[in-house]
Amino acid sequence: MNILYDERVDGALPKVDKTALLAELRERLPDLDILHQEEDLKPYECDGLSAYRTTPMLVVLPERVEQVEQLLKLCHEHQVPVVARGAGTGLSGGALPLEQGILLVMARFNRILEVNPSGRFARVQPGVRNLAISQAAAPFDLYYAPDPSSQIACSIGGNVAENAGGVHCLKYGLTVHNLLKVDILTVEGERLTLGSDALDSPGFDLLALFTGSEGMLGVITEVTVKLLPKPQVAKVLLAAFDSVEKAGRAVGDIIAAGIIPGGLEMMDNLAIRAAEDFIHAGYPVDAEAILLCELDGVEADVHDDCERVRQVLETAGATEVRLARDEAERVRFWAGRKNAFPAVGRISPDYYCMDGTIPRRELPGVLRGITELSAEYGLRVANVFHAGDGNMHPLILFDANQPGELERAEALGGKILELCVAVGGSITGEHGVGREKINQMCAQFNADELTLFHGVKAAFDATGLLNPGKNIPTLHRCAEFGAMHVHHGQMPFPELERF
Amino acid sequence: MNILYDERVDGALPKVDKTALLAELRERLPDLDILHQEEDLKPYECDGLSAYRTTPMLVVLPERVEQVEQLLKLCHEHQVPVVARGAGTGLSGGALPLEQGILLVMARFNRILEVNPSGRFARVQPGVRNLAISQAAAPFDLYYAPDPSSQIACSIGGNVAENAGGVHCLKYGLTVHNLLKVDILTVEGERLTLGSDALDSPGFDLLALFTGSEGMLGVITEVTVKLLPKPQVAKVLLAAFDSVEKAGRAVGDIIAAGIIPGGLEMMDNLAIRAAEDFIHAGYPVDAEAILLCELDGVEADVHDDCERVRQVLETAGATEVRLARDEAERVRFWAGRKNAFPAVGRISPDYYCMDGTIPRRELPGVLRGITELSAEYGLRVANVFHAGDGNMHPLILFDANQPGELERAEALGGKILELCVAVGGSITGEHGVGREKINQMCAQFNADELTLFHGVKAAFDATGLLNPGKNIPTLHRCAEFGAMHVHHGQMPFPELERF
Repeated sequence: MNILYDERVDGALPKVDKTALLAELRERLPDLDILHQEEDLKPYECDGLSAYRTTPMLVVLPERVEQVEQLLKLCHEHQVPVVARGAGTGLSGGALPLEQGILLVMARFNRILEVNPSGRFARVQPGVRNLAISQAAAPFDLYYAPDPSSQIACSIGGNVAENAGGVHCLKYGLTVHNLLKVDILTVEGERLTLGSDALDSPGFDLLALFTGSEGMLGVITEVTVKLLPKPQVAKVLLAAFDSVEKAGRAVGDIIAAGIIPGGLEMMDNLAIRAAEDFIHAGYPVDAEAILLCELDGVEADVHDDCERVRQVLETAGATEVRLARDEAERVRFWAGRKNAFPAVGRISPDYYCMDGTIPRRELPGVLRGITELSAEYGLRVANVFHAGDGNMHPLILFDANQPGELERAEALGGKILELCVAVGGSITGEHGVGREKINQMCAQFNADELTLFHGVKAAFDATGLLNPGKNIPTLHRCAEFGAMHVHHGQMPFPELERF
Repeated sequence: MNILYDERVDGALPKVDKTALLAELRERLPDLDILHQEEDLKPYECDGLSAYRTTPMLVVLPERVEQVEQLLKLCHEHQVPVVARGAGTGLSGGALPLEQGILLVMARFNRILEVNPSGRFARVQPGVRNLAISQAAAPFDLYYAPDPSSQIACSIGGNVAENAGGVHCLKYGLTVHNLLKVDILTVEGERLTLGSDALDSPGFDLLALFTGSEGMLGVITEVTVKLLPKPQVAKVLLAAFDSVEKAGRAVGDIIAAGIIPGGLEMMDNLAIRAAEDFIHAGYPVDAEAILLCELDGVEADVHDDCERVRQVLETAGATEVRLARDEAERVRFWAGRKNAFPAVGRISPDYYCMDGTIPRRELPGVLRGITELSAEYGLRVANVFHAGDGNMHPLILFDANQPGELERAEALGGKILELCVAVGGSITGEHGVGREKINQMCAQFNADELTLFHGVKAAFDATGLLNPGKNIPTLHRCAEFGAMHVHHGQMPFPELERF
């Protein structure tokens, strides 16, 4: 079974007769909105990772769960692969369509079904935008904590599929920590509920298993998220450093002091200058690195914590520590950080966004390693990251019009991810594996582990029709990619030993 | 494959020739400690749930991972079932042995391999006691957060297998939230590492899947836990109420005020009096219910939070709110709560400890329901629970020597669990399913969901040799038990409608 689904990935997808399928879809689902003409399909050829593009065979835009149910039954019957897609803001090609498959767009499932203030949860359809949940909960002084930078556009179904994070996940957790229940349709069109209204559920933890499974295990039809009370007060400290390593060590010092900031973010000089030029956040452009540390909670606590963090930062060698004077400045400080990616886009024709996660204590060494690799490959790297949880987003600047630069950028990106794995980290933090990092998964996991993944996949989807070619590589692919497995840092690459 | 493993449960276990197996074990693992005589096996016939007893065929006490590896390979070869056991403090019969199986006692794996203060983790063998980890981390002002009441005796391997909680899990999470990595041996004796040193891991979340899987997916050989900085200060408020429902509502009010207590526990009058007689904690014995609310963190924050909680409690109708004057009184307040089970054991010949979890907002209604059921069945029920996270531990008092009382207690327990499921809760919070609640799983899950569980089990252990008969019931068993599925409260039992 696994082999069948492996082959779908690697070019051996079964041929589907588009005309016949379209006719049958129209007959069996007469009110389903179907796109099938080239110009209508074009907008769906990629998600937020525009480097990979495929025109889907058909795009369907259902509005009711029954339609999705019938569609899946029909696809299962005819063995047609299905890729589900939310808002398409994903950065790893997780919603990349298939030439021989159906792209199932869940965008019209955009209703908030229930906001329950006493139960502190919201029941929403998968196409609801992340920020819209917090907006609907605001009248009750509640909000939904995970806040990916794309929160204005990204949908909760995609957040669940990718286990999205955000600048506040150090304190409030990833998507998986903020879910109660997910209703899904299996590949065979059966309805299932994973999780429960209670905080723990017996049996295997299928809700955690499903979260972050990138559309390979089922199609999400409803999500019940936890809501949290809005913090009374949030304050942000900005600290400047004359070296990225000092800033990296200060991150560990804050955590070691027993403080859990609402957000703890780091930017290096290149990112600082790009963001400052774009947003005018008031960043110190001469600093080698800045930290943004948000403290939230009740007034008195936040006041005390700000003082403690200030002391820690000064002891760690900060050249300047500034408390945002008012809410406007606080928002400006964050606007610089949240717009760092487009800001870097302004100073370079192209950039390649990485997403590695490392143990926090490895931050100073990995930053030094990235600097050395950057020099070696002759490409600038801007560092922007969720420092508190060790989730790095190095942005590799390049110009695709210069011969060889794209290849060099990709090679440098691969080296950075291998460095992350070598120090015990992983090849992705919050952006997912998708299509982009499928080869790097061969570095992260060995054959036994991959076989286990395939076994779990088979328990949900033995035919492999759901989002083939993403997330979990075939053993065959890894063999072709070269046996570069560096499991949990136990077998560092020779060229990485210098770090 | 699933059927084979189902049958192992229901009496169709393959016959194993004990003498031949013993001879082969001795030959292939000459330095493995093996118990095989009746009097040596007797101490292992049950875990903390003494109502279920089985004499294991053989008990093995390995000391090295290689021995476990070889043992599993041998058992796999001969298709001998294996039940792994830690300290045996579990309360749901998860480590109940098999007459035709090997009991694999991991108690001798009791070494703390590493305490890493900068990385904030500890690497330990599975037989290390929960409390011993915090003791080893204490010199660095760190500790391991989950603290089941049995923490002085229970082992971390068992904690992972059962996803153990404790009085502090409202704020600090269950075992699953405090793990980085688990090293396991598969049923075939292959070594795997689940999770990583980083906070997120790509691919499916097998670490979360494995945690709480009750020994069905693999044998734990090493655990890497997160360590947290010890709170500078911890204070406890005791609030008395003249009704359990008022106390139940006060729990919701505290959470709604945006406070996350370190612990938030509730006891009713019967439990209060039993604990007071036993421990002399200073509880108000005339109160219908008390809440214990612990606030921890830095001095100034804790002081402010105590005042806010006091106001909330008074507004909620508390007849008395008392702050523990000093550390000695704080410890005494907790000692009463932590010894509530043995305290109840002193006032009743027998008691039956339940472990249901419900949405927090359902607390008042479920408490009323339990009172009515208690009257109907003519058995006293003492309520002691982790109120903050809706994890209830009703203790049903009975006398096994009175004809019919045991049966009545079991029937009442079943009704209480069904009530939990009917309001959207679950049949277990932190004690696990084990052997005890295998039938109630038929109420919690439908056939499609159980099939998915079996599929996941098969991905790890297709032959079903690991801890058969626990945690996940067969479809056959559920059919025999009667189709009592009340999925997520959508189909409440007619007799529960009055609640």
